[in-house]
Amino acid sequence: MTDRSPTPNPFDWLDAHAARRTAAGLRRWLRHRVSDDPVLDLASNDYLGLARHPEVAEAVAAAAKEWGAGSTGSRLVTGSTTVHRDLEAAAAAHVGAEAGLVFSSGYLANLGAVTALAGPGTLIVSDARNHASLVDACRLSRARVEIVPHLDVAAVENTLAVRTEERALVITDGVFSVDGAIAPVAELLTVARRHGAGLLVDEAHALGVVGEGGRGTVHAAGLAGAPDVVVTSVLSKSLGSQGGLVLGPARVIEHLVDTARSFIFDTGLAPATAAGALAALRLLAGHPELATGVRDRAREISAIARSLGLDSPEPHGAVAAVLVGEAEAAVAAADLCLSLGVRVGCFRPPSVPDGISRLRVTARADLTDADVERARAALAAVAARLNSQA
Amino acid sequence: MTDRSPTPNPFDWLDAHAARRTAAGLRRWLRHRVSDDPVLDLASNDYLGLARHPEVAEAVAAAAKEWGAGSTGSRLVTGSTTVHRDLEAAAAAHVGAEAGLVFSSGYLANLGAVTALAGPGTLIVSDARNHASLVDACRLSRARVEIVPHLDVAAVENTLAVRTEERALVITDGVFSVDGAIAPVAELLTVARRHGAGLLVDEAHALGVVGEGGRGTVHAAGLAGAPDVVVTSVLSKSLGSQGGLVLGPARVIEHLVDTARSFIFDTGLAPATAAGALAALRLLAGHPELATGVRDRAREISAIARSLGLDSPEPHGAVAAVLVGEAEAAVAAADLCLSLGVRVGCFRPPSVPDGISRLRVTARADLTDADVERARAALAAVAARLNSQA
Repeated sequence: MTDRSPTPNPFDWLDAHAARRTAAGLRRWLRHRVSDDPVLDLASNDYLGLARHPEVAEAVAAAAKEWGAGSTGSRLVTGSTTVHRDLEAAAAAHVGAEAGLVFSSGYLANLGAVTALAGPGTLIVSDARNHASLVDACRLSRARVEIVPHLDVAAVENTLAVRTEERALVITDGVFSVDGAIAPVAELLTVARRHGAGLLVDEAHALGVVGEGGRGTVHAAGLAGAPDVVVTSVLSKSLGSQGGLVLGPARVIEHLVDTARSFIFDTGLAPATAAGALAALRLLAGHPELATGVRDRAREISAIARSLGLDSPEPHGAVAAVLVGEAEAAVAAADLCLSLGVRVGCFRPPSVPDGISRLRVTARADLTDADVERARAALAAVAARLNSQA
Repeated sequence: MTDRSPTPNPFDWLDAHAARRTAAGLRRWLRHRVSDDPVLDLASNDYLGLARHPEVAEAVAAAAKEWGAGSTGSRLVTGSTTVHRDLEAAAAAHVGAEAGLVFSSGYLANLGAVTALAGPGTLIVSDARNHASLVDACRLSRARVEIVPHLDVAAVENTLAVRTEERALVITDGVFSVDGAIAPVAELLTVARRHGAGLLVDEAHALGVVGEGGRGTVHAAGLAGAPDVVVTSVLSKSLGSQGGLVLGPARVIEHLVDTARSFIFDTGLAPATAAGALAALRLLAGHPELATGVRDRAREISAIARSLGLDSPEPHGAVAAVLVGEAEAAVAAADLCLSLGVRVGCFRPPSVPDGISRLRVTARADLTDADVERARAALAAVAARLNSQA
């Protein structure tokens, strides 16, 4: 093709863009895991250790043989199976919602729910640290979007009070992925009700982790089944699988089936994947101690970090954060852990809204005491490195 | 919760909205397939019949036992495996691209590619009948978007010529899902090059179907590996699995890894699902006659429809359309086929940009002559019904 290729090439600007990212320490590289990886995983979102649970893996394998590899079409055409139906019923029952709808990813669940419930003529009030998929959903909705300071209920109320739109929707993460904060959902709903607004809570990091049996922040606040609350979540973290969920009043779910573009125009979740999520959900329902277990392990790891002189706020969910500061230092700290056989996450701009790069150390319900000791050794090395540079 | 629930409820407007959709014949209902469904499937996008191919199903099952149910995180953290790497290499090789990237859905692949390659200060020129995910991608990009008439190369050139933006991107489906038209990709690239624009082609309905070995419209036009062309596609149609693909110059793929929000902030495709897609891709590569087979069957079904007096344009891809007109009549025709044991798709507004509701009869490479006879019987019943009402 070179003889016909244009000069300059319309993608030449990418090179300068890449050079700027390199200079800023913001390049990202894919590292491909092997299945028998000996490294201790403290970086994934497999909070309950169910992704590789034998019953879950076997459910996927059996469903693949029964259904094949894919759902073969949109959920509205050929992509709905009895597995999707059973998963939706089980997920709704778990969090106490009237109905549920499975999407092929959590990203698409948020896009679908927000754009179907809010459009031109609606005000969205959105927490400044909401997940990227909610941010994109707000943009895509063409509603008026007001970003309020993180966890600031008074700001939500003030914004709702002075609106001119008839309809309004308050949007928040249940557990925020970067700082681990838990949203004040009861207070947010009180304020929303005072001003005739709905509430949407993304429980991606809360399902399986927060509240009794991991039923999430809305359930823990005593608001399960509230007729003006919509919950979104994922099948890809505590449930060890893949996909997204919307849970809420039946009329909201029916509205999504009719109008949510990311539901209508997307191939349904693979039935085998849905079967894996359903098996994981049944394990969670039968073992509510899994949720307590992961929270205890996260607090234990955070306490170890603090005992080593590192800056680690007390976690409420599954993730212990270790604040580092500069992006390059955080990458170096994560690389040091990996060299010691422990994989931790590393959050850098633009993933950190406060600009503080950090290690993201994920607990799992199935961590052993020996695993925690390996984590301690890695964090001790990080502390020694940071102290030597201070 | 009823004692605390608000009056009026902020979602009360949904009831009136649902009533309007019901009156317009635009309600949609999920029908949940069973795995031993005796109905003949002429509605799915499983164009090559690979979704339930034993080698594909076995690949999913084996990978589930090896890797578990999910990828456990973002592709940038723990969600990349050697299966993703192998699938990306095989997909890029199949269409002759330099590099590839797997997303968890085709919807997210389009959102990621378009938003990463076009933003404020870029002009996007988009065909009026592009897929919903491309439409949403354009909205989300915050680029200036100009919609041009369907298949109108002159309109693309005129729009590019008078732009004030330095950068521009032309976006088109390779095969359009509703009318089955094939984009004039060679002409579009000539025009794009004359005006310094890049070209993005969505090959969702072309991969496995169009061109030698189903390598798609770009390859068929002799443009494989062009340095100014980006291809997107899916793993969920001809490859019978789930997920999305971006294929193109290595620097484009690296840019997406660094900046595409729907890649960075999404859980990676389940490794077992990726393994199913890889097995399907290897079957396609080894059996290029599959692509010819599905095209032949589609033309055969369309010819049958015409011989029965139905309005069915000659198909270029896997889908024979049967134009009906009103939404309710199209639904009734699809229901009639189902009552005769044949499931066909039904496209209604807003899925049909021209407002003509239609049956969407999908061929598969593995249809038998007996299957085609069943299709003939169902279409004959539709023709008789429509004639009796004319």
